[in-house]
Amino acid sequence: MLGSWNDGAAKSAILDFVARVTKPGGREYVPPAERVATFDNDGTLWCEQPMQVQIFFLLSRLHSLAEKDPSIKVRQPFKAFLEQDLAAIRLLGRQGALEVAFAVYAGMTDEELDGLSREWLASATHPKLGRLFTRLTYQPQVELLGYLRENGFKTFIVSGGGIGLIRAFAEAVYGIPPEQVIGSSVRTAFALQDGRVQLLRRAELNSFDDREAKVENIGLHIGRRPILAFGNSDGDLAMLRYTRTGPGPRLALLMHHDDPVREVAYDRDFALSPLAEALDQVDDYGITVVSMKRDWKTVFDA
Amino acid sequence: MLGSWNDGAAKSAILDFVARVTKPGGREYVPPAERVATFDNDGTLWCEQPMQVQIFFLLSRLHSLAEKDPSIKVRQPFKAFLEQDLAAIRLLGRQGALEVAFAVYAGMTDEELDGLSREWLASATHPKLGRLFTRLTYQPQVELLGYLRENGFKTFIVSGGGIGLIRAFAEAVYGIPPEQVIGSSVRTAFALQDGRVQLLRRAELNSFDDREAKVENIGLHIGRRPILAFGNSDGDLAMLRYTRTGPGPRLALLMHHDDPVREVAYDRDFALSPLAEALDQVDDYGITVVSMKRDWKTVFDA
Repeated sequence: MLGSWNDGAAKSAILDFVARVTKPGGREYVPPAERVATFDNDGTLWCEQPMQVQIFFLLSRLHSLAEKDPSIKVRQPFKAFLEQDLAAIRLLGRQGALEVAFAVYAGMTDEELDGLSREWLASATHPKLGRLFTRLTYQPQVELLGYLRENGFKTFIVSGGGIGLIRAFAEAVYGIPPEQVIGSSVRTAFALQDGRVQLLRRAELNSFDDREAKVENIGLHIGRRPILAFGNSDGDLAMLRYTRTGPGPRLALLMHHDDPVREVAYDRDFALSPLAEALDQVDDYGITVVSMKRDWKTVFDA
Repeated sequence: MLGSWNDGAAKSAILDFVARVTKPGGREYVPPAERVATFDNDGTLWCEQPMQVQIFFLLSRLHSLAEKDPSIKVRQPFKAFLEQDLAAIRLLGRQGALEVAFAVYAGMTDEELDGLSREWLASATHPKLGRLFTRLTYQPQVELLGYLRENGFKTFIVSGGGIGLIRAFAEAVYGIPPEQVIGSSVRTAFALQDGRVQLLRRAELNSFDDREAKVENIGLHIGRRPILAFGNSDGDLAMLRYTRTGPGPRLALLMHHDDPVREVAYDRDFALSPLAEALDQVDDYGITVVSMKRDWKTVFDA
């Protein structure tokens, strides 16, 4: 089990925690129904460099639109995306990029966006790593999700990314069904089209599922405090603290990208999703750091 | 199976539907992951007469508050509740009653409300029927939920009632965990109390989960169109139509309370949650009516 994890403090903390909460009659036993584990997605379950996958997806959509309407090419912020101007995209910030995405998909139905997402994910590859994006998931994390479920946990994604794109692949890739995915979302509107009820996407933000909003959305969607949470940025700190400060046994894990050879080394300087405060406070908040370089035998599957 | 259901068109429709979607290799086979079934709660899974259980719960809270602050007794809308003035409560409407509840629980944590709900449900009884409210669930529906799950369905509640109260009993009574309960909700706020992260309830509505909002919330929380839905009022019609108008096999069921001997006969005249349009349109919308009088052998458990 956890074959892609190196022996060490992080792996031991996980194995020990799971043993304690699953031991029948043990002092720290947690009934299966309360074994809720929440995972951030970008940078925690799959690669988010040089920018989040959802931004590549947005880019492909903008290229299609620009073919029909070339005026898009000279209008900001679309121009920045089409020219892959990373500095300008990073300046928009992650919420800014999300808002462009929301505008671009407005008027589509939820089911149309799902179809578009699946189609794109079936063939889109990472520009540098040359792999399908869906193969940029971290092998040790896929193992960890499976290991937790084998031990009676229910696994959830709680991501700042758009909920629709994640739902389009999370079941096949992580074994996490759509109803266990929480993410950023737009408001939708009930509509009748040719006698069929549809949910139309509006260009209005419902929730930017980052920082404190992650905790509020866990309350709304799950209704139970997680006993295990895993993140990789300051956007996950509220969720890690919410998890860690509940009564009884709790495990909060923080991924540190410190492996420039097998992936990328980054933390404070990544404008789209920095890791600074969470890293500085790991001792105070009782957070366990996972070092990609030290703790993972394998990063991506073979 | 479905021992509390009488043989007849409604029971046959259910058995036939489940047989078709679960038959391996069948033309209408639906994979287990897509077998989503959504149920309204008040009037569909348990009794909502003479008013919804959540209003009785609110009343008990108001009595506690009035002991500390007697001025509440002469202030509307609290006065109407404390005097059990049904006509006045009905005039407020269900959303109005919910808003009173939101004000009264504001500032509590989600976990405090959960504790309060469980405490109340453990001993509160229906004034006329003399049973615990949690024993006012309909036996045929508890059987139906179990039958669907045995056949690979995932069962959800989609209720206009406050999400917190339902989550406090749905797992024990219906076998439906908190994360599969959707309901009306207030906004919450991340807060630190004595070093512990809490979700504080604000006095601001997040979602009144009724009518079209039920469909929008299914999109947000589940991310999949149900293949079976069960409701009992016009507040459920949007959900029934959303379910019924998807491609492939679909079943939309509508409970009709027509049994004054074993429960109550009501539909159009029930101001808190009327049934009129949905009943008038069953043929046009392909909805299967379940008559309490005709289709249920038993209403409540023995």
